[in-house]
Amino acid sequence: MAGAGGSADAGLCIHQVTLMESCDFRQSLECLARNSVTSTAVWRAKLEEIGVGSAARLLADTGVQAVSLCAGGLLTEPGAAASRAALDDNRRWLDAAAAIGAATMVTLTGGLPQGSRDLDAARQRAKERLVGLLPHARAAGVRLALEPLHPMVCGYRSVISTLAEANDWLDEIGAGDELGIALDSYAVWWEAGLGAEIARAGARILNFHCADWLPDTGDVRLDRGMPGDGLIDNRGIWRMVKATGFAGPIEVEIFSARNWWKRDPDEVVRTVKERVAEMG
Amino acid sequence: MAGAGGSADAGLCIHQVTLMESCDFRQSLECLARNSVTSTAVWRAKLEEIGVGSAARLLADTGVQAVSLCAGGLLTEPGAAASRAALDDNRRWLDAAAAIGAATMVTLTGGLPQGSRDLDAARQRAKERLVGLLPHARAAGVRLALEPLHPMVCGYRSVISTLAEANDWLDEIGAGDELGIALDSYAVWWEAGLGAEIARAGARILNFHCADWLPDTGDVRLDRGMPGDGLIDNRGIWRMVKATGFAGPIEVEIFSARNWWKRDPDEVVRTVKERVAEMG
Repeated sequence: MAGAGGSADAGLCIHQVTLMESCDFRQSLECLARNSVTSTAVWRAKLEEIGVGSAARLLADTGVQAVSLCAGGLLTEPGAAASRAALDDNRRWLDAAAAIGAATMVTLTGGLPQGSRDLDAARQRAKERLVGLLPHARAAGVRLALEPLHPMVCGYRSVISTLAEANDWLDEIGAGDELGIALDSYAVWWEAGLGAEIARAGARILNFHCADWLPDTGDVRLDRGMPGDGLIDNRGIWRMVKATGFAGPIEVEIFSARNWWKRDPDEVVRTVKERVAEMG
Repeated sequence: MAGAGGSADAGLCIHQVTLMESCDFRQSLECLARNSVTSTAVWRAKLEEIGVGSAARLLADTGVQAVSLCAGGLLTEPGAAASRAALDDNRRWLDAAAAIGAATMVTLTGGLPQGSRDLDAARQRAKERLVGLLPHARAAGVRLALEPLHPMVCGYRSVISTLAEANDWLDEIGAGDELGIALDSYAVWWEAGLGAEIARAGARILNFHCADWLPDTGDVRLDRGMPGDGLIDNRGIWRMVKATGFAGPIEVEIFSARNWWKRDPDEVVRTVKERVAEMG
């Protein structure tokens, strides 16, 4: 199984989604490569546009490594048929992750099913199905990186919202190396006891995602800021993550429909590099 | 000290802020009164427009009871001068709350000070100053209702975001009746273990605020939904609150710049009454 980290000089990863509207799959890799960024997280929608074979070739050609596939999971729809479909989809996505050389698949629980207000039931379904994915993840050699998301997307995308919950789930599931955590500073910066939960997560942390919270955030999903432009103590959180022994890169993942997605991708990548250099 | 509840038929309270843009102070009370809603929470900005004396007279004239004054606190600015100013402001607001007959003052910690990313320091300051307010609250006969807000306003308005944190603070502070909790379904509906935290809060719950989370929420502060229009299991949360022995009303507090604030206030109040009747 590939490590979640990368070579010593691969301290920076920029997710494809950070260049979501300015680049297609190929353009995003070429932009990263010409700016000496050798690591990305592949966005599933972009992968599906060109197919796994082409994606793998483009990654090889540009010398950009896929750290992760983002995102799988989405495990909360009720019913046996929905469960089978979700598990089938995820097995396919895990195979795709393996085919592009990604060490992890970022895994979201999914939100509330249409018309439902029952969070506990959705959580229970997601947890059981996550367990159901473990054998295939193990076989594919791709680790599931469970990612709690910000409570403001609880209904939409993730029924778990804290690192504490992710840690609780992993304690309860008791899986091996095939299950870990993707920690996103944007999702959990507000969490009480975050430092203790990062220490508790320890080697479970497979991916560290980073963005900033803008003081005038205008959208619950697509208005993330560039590290340094907002309220999140990304340096402090990164220090705590490194203290666990984490050897992977800082992964910058910026959903920014009003700003960064509209800008020249080379400018975006240069800015990310400057800001991450300041994170120490 | 006045109870936080109200008479047996006062099961509904509508916050002035629910009619924020359609009514001034007087108009909001008149609208509530003509729709047989006899309880409100007074909004501080509206109170300051007309003054405490006029407000008290209008409440008496319309027969509408002020359950709370919303909101005090805002205790996170660093420095001795800021601390003195915050405590002075809050003592004044507590006196105002007493003068209008409000049993509680909803108390927010405040957000991150300008230019700061240090949540723990802000939390510490807020906690210490909250303790500093207790004697005046006791003397004024007004209870401080500490309200955690949704994590999406962590930077802006409250550095605590969960009922668990509010419970932890109250355990730590060990105050008497003068300190309790305002629980807002909109703020904490996503919280893991919410039921257990409501039971743990028990008689500490002084106010129960209610709104709904719209699936297409378009603003981090001013796009709350009418109970029933969104994803929150308000019936379930209300059932858990009542199970603690809570005898106060459901307080509907809807910040809705794009919808309810633009509507005819009588229509808004009638809709609230219908929806709350469905909450059981």
